[in-house]
Amino acid sequence: MTISSATRPVDVYRTRLGERSQIEPRPHPVVWGKAPAPGPLTGPELAAYDARGYHAQQDVLSDNDIAESSHDARRIADELGDDDRVIREPSNGDVRSLFAAHELSTVVAEICAREDIVGVARQILDDDVYIHQSRINFKPGFSGGPFYWHSDFETWHAEDGMPAPRALSVSLALTPNTPANGPLMIIPGSHRQFVSCVGATPDAYHRESLVSYRPPFGTPDEADVTELADDSGIDSITGPAGSAVFFDSNCMHASSGNISPYPRSNLFVVFNAVSNALVAPFAAATPRPEYLAHRAS
Amino acid sequence: MTISSATRPVDVYRTRLGERSQIEPRPHPVVWGKAPAPGPLTGPELAAYDARGYHAQQDVLSDNDIAESSHDARRIADELGDDDRVIREPSNGDVRSLFAAHELSTVVAEICAREDIVGVARQILDDDVYIHQSRINFKPGFSGGPFYWHSDFETWHAEDGMPAPRALSVSLALTPNTPANGPLMIIPGSHRQFVSCVGATPDAYHRESLVSYRPPFGTPDEADVTELADDSGIDSITGPAGSAVFFDSNCMHASSGNISPYPRSNLFVVFNAVSNALVAPFAAATPRPEYLAHRAS
Repeated sequence: MTISSATRPVDVYRTRLGERSQIEPRPHPVVWGKAPAPGPLTGPELAAYDARGYHAQQDVLSDNDIAESSHDARRIADELGDDDRVIREPSNGDVRSLFAAHELSTVVAEICAREDIVGVARQILDDDVYIHQSRINFKPGFSGGPFYWHSDFETWHAEDGMPAPRALSVSLALTPNTPANGPLMIIPGSHRQFVSCVGATPDAYHRESLVSYRPPFGTPDEADVTELADDSGIDSITGPAGSAVFFDSNCMHASSGNISPYPRSNLFVVFNAVSNALVAPFAAATPRPEYLAHRAS
Repeated sequence: MTISSATRPVDVYRTRLGERSQIEPRPHPVVWGKAPAPGPLTGPELAAYDARGYHAQQDVLSDNDIAESSHDARRIADELGDDDRVIREPSNGDVRSLFAAHELSTVVAEICAREDIVGVARQILDDDVYIHQSRINFKPGFSGGPFYWHSDFETWHAEDGMPAPRALSVSLALTPNTPANGPLMIIPGSHRQFVSCVGATPDAYHRESLVSYRPPFGTPDEADVTELADDSGIDSITGPAGSAVFFDSNCMHASSGNISPYPRSNLFVVFNAVSNALVAPFAAATPRPEYLAHRAS
């Protein structure tokens, strides 16, 4: 695959440079098109998403959805063994993530195609969408590691060549998300700022970054995270199994380690606008593999 | 110091053995004497403490108390350098705990002696009390490690020779305790069960156990923690700076790591009934040092 970057415009999301990090206002919209656009969310829900960067909703998956997708993912991970799409805990080899879940599991594919899931993405992004990435995360009880603060868009822009933050993620809870098991933490409003990260991306960096709780590159400075949190606090997002959180690709987010006895598992799906198709990476020598960053065909 | 164990009665809290762990009902009371005894807590508050194992209260410390005790503790830790009473983060040398805080700081000593603090201990334990241990914990933002599940009494019985769980702790918040910064998690009702731990205690074990997030000894089996949590859930205890949590010495508790930008610091004081004075350790060759387990004089 050859990806030309000869004609690309000036990059307004410069990152992975050898200089001090910066917090810059995001020039692109959050809710695209004319709001309120038709779709599953109400006008007030769209306005709240615009302001805070996320929308949480209960009862999106049924008990049966949860049982079938979890079972399917574990079966597939077992079959795949040490395939690159299976990420394991460094400490004990337990499955931590299964990537390309919508390609590997028809159960997951069907869930992703539902109007109350993909329809929210179309409504907010005001475009047709495709799946940029999907994965099931298994965060086991007692030993699930934390995920340090990051903006997904910073990584997708730098390493995958996603031009603009015209993308969003939905995290579908396969287990309860409680205060005790390391729920998603989002700094509300942070999606309106772009925080650049320091340091050039090494080759094949995803092999390291996917198993490190605090990767050395693509990770914001502590001072920048503090500045964002001082401005608007930190929301911890809890809810029963079957809940969904839709969140902007540029939200600063994290989750703590899980020392509760209970796993925290979720199905994570990223929808990207077809008009925002990937180009060459903005701050890496070669794009990441297809299972981490699908390219619309 | 010579401590005789010739005449001690049969140990009803056997632990650190080379066999499978056990969960046994606790034979001793939680609220001692005739309830409701006179003191700061109301009858319903005492009953709730009896059932759940803890009592939380706001506005126990003033802003001035917090500023003075925090400042005093940092000054003292700086002066002490690498004294054994100062515990540092393995990763970067930051101060994690200052032990014997009530002996080292007159500010802390005055706080510990207040009727709304020590009076609660006297009321619940129905006896005069002395300070078994005190410390200030500094859990820094971004990198504060977790504390794994444990019963304090299990350690104090095994390693310090505390005969019965006629002791309680108070954790006084010097910073806000939020869902994001690794607040105290307690399994309510767990104080009514004694969970034995497997494995003989090594010599001078406190040098390891105080810097490990999940020490190999004095740590309950995952199956036992799961059984307790399945029975009654997990309470995450949050509150503003100045809040207090009084909790029974035998509560199963833990706290997650802190990847928020904000520290979680507290003044932690253990009151033991004078009638429950320490004897020889029940499962260790020699007692821990005085700064970890004061002996009533």
